Amino acid sequence: MSVYIDPAVAGHLRGFEMPERLGFGTVMAPVMFRAVCQDGCWSGGELVPYAPLALDPAAKVLHYAQSCFEGMKAYRTLGGGVSLFRPERNAARMAHSAERLCMPAVPESLFMEGVRTITAYCANLVPASSGESLYLRPFLIGTQPDLAVSASTSYEFYVIASPSAAYHAGHMRLWVEREDSRAAVGGTGDAKVGGNYAASLLSISRLKARGYDQSLWLNPGNRHTVDELSGMNFFAVMEGELHTPRLNGSILEGITRDSLIQLADALGYTVHERDIDIDDLLALVKSGTCSEAFACGTAAIVSPVSLLGDGEQQYELAQVPGPVAEHLRQSLLDIQEGRAEDRFGWMEAVEPVTT
Amino acid sequence: MSVYIDPAVAGHLRGFEMPERLGFGTVMAPVMFRAVCQDGCWSGGELVPYAPLALDPAAKVLHYAQSCFEGMKAYRTLGGGVSLFRPERNAARMAHSAERLCMPAVPESLFMEGVRTITAYCANLVPASSGESLYLRPFLIGTQPDLAVSASTSYEFYVIASPSAAYHAGHMRLWVEREDSRAAVGGTGDAKVGGNYAASLLSISRLKARGYDQSLWLNPGNRHTVDELSGMNFFAVMEGELHTPRLNGSILEGITRDSLIQLADALGYTVHERDIDIDDLLALVKSGTCSEAFACGTAAIVSPVSLLGDGEQQYELAQVPGPVAEHLRQSLLDIQEGRAEDRFGWMEAVEPVTT
Ligand SMILES: Cc1ncc(COP(=O)(O)O)c(C=O)c1O
Ligand SMILES: Cc1ncc(COP(=O)(O)O)c(C=O)c1O
Repeated sequence: MSVYIDPAVAGHLRGFEMPERLGFGTVMAPVMFRAVCQDGCWSGGELVPYAPLALDPAAKVLHYAQSCFEGMKAYRTLGGGVSLFRPERNAARMAHSAERLCMPAVPESLFMEGVRTITAYCANLVPASSGESLYLRPFLIGTQPDLAVSASTSYEFYVIASPSAAYHAGHMRLWVEREDSRAAVGGTGDAKVGGNYAASLLSISRLKARGYDQSLWLNPGNRHTVDELSGMNFFAVMEGELHTPRLNGSILEGITRDSLIQLADALGYTVHERDIDIDDLLALVKSGTCSEAFACGTAAIVSPVSLLGDGEQQYELAQVPGPVAEHLRQSLLDIQEGRAEDRFGWMEAVEPVTT
Repeated sequence: MSVYIDPAVAGHLRGFEMPERLGFGTVMAPVMFRAVCQDGCWSGGELVPYAPLALDPAAKVLHYAQSCFEGMKAYRTLGGGVSLFRPERNAARMAHSAERLCMPAVPESLFMEGVRTITAYCANLVPASSGESLYLRPFLIGTQPDLAVSASTSYEFYVIASPSAAYHAGHMRLWVEREDSRAAVGGTGDAKVGGNYAASLLSISRLKARGYDQSLWLNPGNRHTVDELSGMNFFAVMEGELHTPRLNGSILEGITRDSLIQLADALGYTVHERDIDIDDLLALVKSGTCSEAFACGTAAIVSPVSLLGDGEQQYELAQVPGPVAEHLRQSLLDIQEGRAEDRFGWMEAVEPVTT
C-alpha cells in the first residue's frame, strides 16, 4: 500500500484504552484515514491521528448537505483474524451516492485502501464477542468555502472507525409513518446521503414519545406500499416465504438485504421482491398469515419486529423472534464471523499491522 | 448588547482589504458571530475572528445533514446608514427549519443579536452601489460526535457575512424539471435545510450542460403544478395580474415573495396565490397571455425569466424584462435602499460600531 502513515499514529494506537462499555458508534478509534480531492484530482491517502476537522464556516457541506457516507464492519473471525464483508459493494454504493449529489466518486482503489488500512492498524480494536465489531464509517464531504448553491470544487474523504458492541435493536416496535417522508420520488432515497437522515429525525422523535422504536416509511409516490426503516431494510415472513420491498428507486439498496436474499435462496426459502401494500400487510399480521417481520442492516444485522403501530391500532407479530429471522441471522453471522464456509466469497481477510 | 467581543476583532476588521471584485457569497468578512447550545441551554453570543470551525469527524452535521440556515442582507441606505430588511422573519423561519430537523430554535433575541452585531461591526463592509449588499448567512449545525441516527445534543450557531455585488441572475432560462424532486411531500421543502439543496445539485448540473440557468421544480405530490426554483420563488404575469404558487407545504415561504405580494397589492396589482399547472402555464406563455415571468429571493431580488424549456420544447416569454417585474424590483429596492418611504415598517437601521 502507498498510504502515508503519520508517525504519530503508532503512539495514538498504543495510548488508546478500550472502554469497558462500548455502545454503538460512540467510541472512536484514535486514528482516521483521509484523502482530499481538488478539482477532480485525488491526493494519496493518509492514516493520521483522529482529530477535529478544520472546516471553513462557508464549506458547502455545512450549508447544502453535500455529504454521503457508508456503514460497514470489520469482524473478528474464528481463529482470531479480522475480515471485511463485501467491502466493494460499499465502495460502489458510495460512488452512486456521490454521483447523486454531484460529488466525485472516491475511486474504488482509494476506498478499499482506506477501509483496509484503518482495519489493519486497528485490528486490535476489533472486539471479539459474537455480534460485536469494528464499525467503519467512510464519508465524503464538500469543503469549498463558497455560498453559491453549486457543487463544491474540493472534497475530503475520511474513514473513521468505532469499536462497537452488538447493536441492540431488541424487538422493534415500528410506527407506520403516514405523514412524513424521508425522501422524494426523484429524490435521494436510493443514495446514502445526509439529507435523508435529517428528514427522518422528526418522525423518530415523535414515535419515541409514543413508545415506538423506528418509523416504517411508506413509498413517497403512492403513500401505501412499504419502503424501509430509517437505517434498515424490511422483510415480512408469510407462510414460510420471505417478502421484501423491491428496489423502487426510493429505498436504499442494503447490502445486508442483498446478502439475505442470496442466503435465503441457498437455504431453500422462497423470496419475493415486490410492492407490499401496508394495509394488506397489517391485515395479514392480524390474521396471523404474516407471522414474522424483521429489519436488516449492517448495524442491526437481523432484528425482529414485535409490533406495527398505525394510528390507534396495534398489530402484534405472532413469532418474536421468529424462526426464519433467527435462522437467517445466525447463518449470516456464521459467515461474517468465520464459523461457516464463505460459500459466496463475501469475506475479505485483512492482515493486521502492528505498530 | 451583552455580546462578548473578542479583542482580536478590531485588528481583523482594520486589516481587512475589500477586494476589487466581489462576486456573490465568495468574499467573507473577517469576523463571525457564534453561540453554542448544549442540552438545550444557549451560551451568550460572541463576535470572533472568522476562522475554520473545529468539528469532530463524527459530528452529526457531517453525516446526517442536521443543519439549517438563513439568507438575508444588510443594505446601504440613502444618506449612508445601514439597515436590515424584515430580520425577524428570518429568525422565525430559521426557528421553523430547526424544528423540522429536531434542532433547538435559536432564540429570536440571540438571532437578532447575531445579525445586528455582525452588521454593526462590519458596517464599513456594506458596499454602496444599488443592488450590492452585505449578505448575511446565519446557520445552525448539530455537532455531537456520535454515529447514531438521532438528534444532536450540542449545536453551534453562526452568522457569517459576505460583502457582495448584485447577484446577476441575468435573464434566466428555466428548465422544467419533470424527473427529480428537491423535497418530498411530508418532507423538508418548506424548511431551509441543507438536504433540499443537495438534492437540487444534480438537476442544476444537468441543465447547465444544456444551456439553462435554473430548475423550475414541480410539486412532488402531483408532479404537474409549479413549486419554485432551487433558491427563489416564482411569479408569472398574465394580463397584468400576478400569479404565484400558494404555500403548499413543499415550497419555501420566501420573505421576498411575501414582500412582493404586499407591495404589488399596494401598487394596485391583483395577486393570485394558487396552484399553477405547468402545462397550462406553458400554453399561456406560447399564446402570449403570460407575458412575463420572474423569480424572486433575497439574493436575486427580482430576476426576469426569458425562457422555459420543457424537454425539446422552448417557450419564450414575450417581455424580458417585463414592466411588472421591473416595477416591482425597483419599488422593493427603493424601500430596501432607503429611497422610498418604509410604508410597511420593514427596515431596521443598525448603528455602526467603529473599532
Ligand atoms: C436507509 C437505509 N436503508 C437500509 C440500510 C441497510 O443497508 P446495509 O445492509 O448496506 O447496511 C441502511 C444502512 O446502511 C440505511 O441507512
Ligand atoms: C428554496 C428557496 N425558495 C425561495 C427562496 C427565497 O426566499 P427569500 O425571499 O426569503 O430569500 C429561497 C432563498 O432564500 C430558497 O432557498
